Amino acid sequence: MPSYKAPVRDTLFLLNDVFDYARYDNLPGFSDASLDIVEAVLGEGAKLSEEVLQPLNRSGDEEGCTRHVDGRVTTPKGFKEAYKAYAEGGWVGLSVDPAYGGQGLPYFLAIALTEYSVSANQAFAMYPGLTTGAIAALQTHASEAQKRIYVPKMASGEWTGTMNLTEPQCGTDLGLIKTRAAPLADGAYAITGQKIFISAGDHDLTENIVHLVLARIEGAPVGVKGISLFVVPKVLVREDGSLGEGNRVTCGSIEHKMGIHANSTCVLNFDGARGWLVGEENRGLPAMFVMMNEARLGVAVQGLALSEVAYQNAAAYAKERLQGRALTGARDAGKPADPIIVHPDVRRMLLEIRAFNEAARAALLWAALSADEARRSPDAAARRTADDRLGLLTPVLKGVLTDTGFANTVKAQQVLGGHGYVAEWGMEQFVRDSRISMIYEGANGIQALDLVGRKLPKDGGRAITAFFAEVSAFLAQNKADSELAPYLGALKAASGQLQQATMWLMQNAMGNPDNAGAGSNDYMHLLGLTLLGFMWARIAKAVLAKKANGGLSEELEAKLVLAKFFNERMMPEAGAHLARLTSGAGSIMAMPAAAF
Amino acid sequence: MPSYKAPVRDTLFLLNDVFDYARYDNLPGFSDASLDIVEAVLGEGAKLSEEVLQPLNRSGDEEGCTRHVDGRVTTPKGFKEAYKAYAEGGWVGLSVDPAYGGQGLPYFLAIALTEYSVSANQAFAMYPGLTTGAIAALQTHASEAQKRIYVPKMASGEWTGTMNLTEPQCGTDLGLIKTRAAPLADGAYAITGQKIFISAGDHDLTENIVHLVLARIEGAPVGVKGISLFVVPKVLVREDGSLGEGNRVTCGSIEHKMGIHANSTCVLNFDGARGWLVGEENRGLPAMFVMMNEARLGVAVQGLALSEVAYQNAAAYAKERLQGRALTGARDAGKPADPIIVHPDVRRMLLEIRAFNEAARAALLWAALSADEARRSPDAAARRTADDRLGLLTPVLKGVLTDTGFANTVKAQQVLGGHGYVAEWGMEQFVRDSRISMIYEGANGIQALDLVGRKLPKDGGRAITAFFAEVSAFLAQNKADSELAPYLGALKAASGQLQQATMWLMQNAMGNPDNAGAGSNDYMHLLGLTLLGFMWARIAKAVLAKKANGGLSEELEAKLVLAKFFNERMMPEAGAHLARLTSGAGSIMAMPAAAF
Repeated sequence: MPSYKAPVRDTLFLLNDVFDYARYDNLPGFSDASLDIVEAVLGEGAKLSEEVLQPLNRSGDEEGCTRHVDGRVTTPKGFKEAYKAYAEGGWVGLSVDPAYGGQGLPYFLAIALTEYSVSANQAFAMYPGLTTGAIAALQTHASEAQKRIYVPKMASGEWTGTMNLTEPQCGTDLGLIKTRAAPLADGAYAITGQKIFISAGDHDLTENIVHLVLARIEGAPVGVKGISLFVVPKVLVREDGSLGEGNRVTCGSIEHKMGIHANSTCVLNFDGARGWLVGEENRGLPAMFVMMNEARLGVAVQGLALSEVAYQNAAAYAKERLQGRALTGARDAGKPADPIIVHPDVRRMLLEIRAFNEAARAALLWAALSADEARRSPDAAARRTADDRLGLLTPVLKGVLTDTGFANTVKAQQVLGGHGYVAEWGMEQFVRDSRISMIYEGANGIQALDLVGRKLPKDGGRAITAFFAEVSAFLAQNKADSELAPYLGALKAASGQLQQATMWLMQNAMGNPDNAGAGSNDYMHLLGLTLLGFMWARIAKAVLAKKANGGLSEELEAKLVLAKFFNERMMPEAGAHLARLTSGAGSIMAMPAAAF
Repeated sequence: MPSYKAPVRDTLFLLNDVFDYARYDNLPGFSDASLDIVEAVLGEGAKLSEEVLQPLNRSGDEEGCTRHVDGRVTTPKGFKEAYKAYAEGGWVGLSVDPAYGGQGLPYFLAIALTEYSVSANQAFAMYPGLTTGAIAALQTHASEAQKRIYVPKMASGEWTGTMNLTEPQCGTDLGLIKTRAAPLADGAYAITGQKIFISAGDHDLTENIVHLVLARIEGAPVGVKGISLFVVPKVLVREDGSLGEGNRVTCGSIEHKMGIHANSTCVLNFDGARGWLVGEENRGLPAMFVMMNEARLGVAVQGLALSEVAYQNAAAYAKERLQGRALTGARDAGKPADPIIVHPDVRRMLLEIRAFNEAARAALLWAALSADEARRSPDAAARRTADDRLGLLTPVLKGVLTDTGFANTVKAQQVLGGHGYVAEWGMEQFVRDSRISMIYEGANGIQALDLVGRKLPKDGGRAITAFFAEVSAFLAQNKADSELAPYLGALKAASGQLQQATMWLMQNAMGNPDNAGAGSNDYMHLLGLTLLGFMWARIAKAVLAKKANGGLSEELEAKLVLAKFFNERMMPEAGAHLARLTSGAGSIMAMPAAAF
């Protein structure tokens, strides 16, 4: 059976030593979140994840969700009780505005904790995860009255939330949505249509579910400019806030999926369901994007989370499994064989995963702290800078962390050989569960296109320019530090290659947008690599500073090895990305569609 | 529902135009296999795969195999009938010696056909696949009497075969085998022990199953030098060849696996089962290696086969699915959206898969033709050269084709977005099924180690030297061909980098074997990339020759695009492999085991 231990110490090290947590003191809410408080909250969240959520992960996968003949959907054994504990602990509304029943703690804390709960049980974590996304959309776009009705119940975990975009003919291209909204005399709308792939679409964890639904009001313009957002509760809410009769929305079936079996991914049929417009008519897409951007960072966390739990279990196996002898001679001649951790190629696989994980955790925290700054800073310039950074990094983190996170679960599975392929060790579930994060909330190709087509040129390239400036400033500041130097060479090279790639896109994508599309995936990964390399440089600096002030724990010593490994063995990929990108769209667009 | 069309025309093009099939005329058996005959056989095999095996692929996955309370194991609905058709068609013994009931056709033909049957239904194809491996081991090491008893029944498909190596405590390291063989008075042995992960271990397709089992004769030396090979039939065979009573071997359970559900992967319990020694006492490992080497090439084929069928289905989807508009403006304004094949990043994913597939098919055919030469050539020098090539390429093909083949099924799944994640489109099954090929018959890390530790230094590096000579000769011969030049640059670069890597290993691995282990994966992939690049160069040359003699079909025009794409977009990885390899074992071995 797989196990899991939340990396609380690492989260705290990053906050304190790498990101200089004290400097965020000026942000509202942060004063209630001293490092002691943060540590206590992380510790409680870790405990819940390790002791309540993780033990349900494999059984949840095996049992899956059930749609009964009467249309009710039930979650696997134990999920209801676990959800109750989760909700009662106040975890759903952790960073929600206290005026609406939340705890008002910083957003970065929610992100850090999401890693733990997803590592423990991704399918479970999606139920509250979608709720917080729905809350964010309501907070930004709903009327005060709507917020009062829904948000406190969602923040408390009494109700959950969903997002309803996809239809059979319509995934990425939301302009193709067919679900109709017909105005009713009382100001509500009758929503009719079919939505598919709706995560947490129906279940027995809560009495009500708040569906956010994209639909087209009769007579609206065609395409994305005719789409509106509606709130459609599963059970109608009376004026006094109590639950009334059921709404006309039903689960038609549960999708048969590769993984996340314990999350009920539903076909939802809206058959004249009562819904209420959120925000303005035909402005549903921008409203949904608030939810989606938040969700994208949450999905990026999933990439890391599964990579982390897969690492932990593969490393434990490698230290225990006796098989063969070290290439340099028996390490433990008294035993029938050495543990497979002695083999360089086994270590390579584990180190590739771990060198990614620790930098990815840093990058996510940096993005989450930027989100806090962007929302809470009293200084407009600081808000703008942070918002630029968050906008730039969100697609990169979503795309790169889920691509690599998934690949890492495959690597971790490989460490176990045949035992990785059978179900009992739990490794193949990590692979199956992790696979979805490359697809949902915008497939990774869409993230790459969002990056090169939107985020890069936005505001005259302000965000990427600022990113280069931050990396350059760091390199300049530390130029004279000979101890740090070995950790900076590859970053310098990669950021140079990223600048070349950016320049190439500026020169070649305007005239031919296919050059942007053809290079988008490589650009995203090149930026991701540079970002992770930057994180390792900052981590190495922080560790060396601690070293100068005394000895290092084994954990921190390991970080120096990992930083070196990342530089030597993972950064070389940057050159291949640049070469591919600058080859342009020629060979990609040359083949006629029929010849595929 | 997924579909499949066997690439018969491509196989024939490779044979005829790239590998100059006529030049193999001198090999025994090839005179019975004129290109017309080959075409007819491939066509029949394609038909069987497309019409009989492929329709059972999804249902077989869903139903899986069943172990009944009485211990009997049954295969999914339809498998028995399909197997009957397969056996009666003479497909199992296609390249088996006619003296033992086979058809004596060339081995390359069996390899080409294996691609088709595995693309159609990997779980099914494993039943006869393991049989041919077991036949090879018996042909090489069994006594004449043993061959007469078993081989004809296996070649006809009346009985199947298995290989029994793995035990709970023993996977890669066969020295840890505990299964015991106690000599009996009549010359047989009583075999006792437990084997796990036994593919096709028990089933209802045939009346008998011939288990080849590694076990330790009482008093044998410890480690791999004390292991012997035994033939242990499921049902004992009487002197007249008829079936007698059941042997003491039972299926304890069927493993719960990530994929290949329709293949019965068994825990087999041998409880004093009667077995007969194959070959010499304590010389079981070399005997099993015959089977394993043959099986490794078969597993390499699986990598290609799943990549091919995944490609076909992803490409079909991309041409049909309407979603969004081309970046350069609507391609079909009359429709609500363009097919997603207009998007560069969708094309990139498809082209990466296809540019791999067509070169991998060439490389496999080249290796299989080398196997035919090595076994059948009247010329000793030609046999040696071919055997060297086969030995060198086998681990590369197994490792690289299954690593990349699996990654390609993931890419193909990505093309379908959410539809790739749900079961009904069949894409997620390709991913789950394909995953095993990176693990079994020696995990890919073992292939890499076999390559750098054994195949590279063997006979003073004769095989790799010959490989470099072949590539160099090709480049030299075609130096003046300006039409071909654009397809050769990357190959030249990569083979130079491969030579550097080889030199680095020669200089750094002797003193520190960890440098070989640390670089083994990159070396294997660098060699694989060079090999596939060499195949593309040869394919491009063949296509250009045809072009000079008249027009090209769309299919052959496409090959020129793919060759260019491979050069521009896939070969750049070579530099990253070299950089990682030459960074050595330092950062890999630095971390103490406990710190993982």
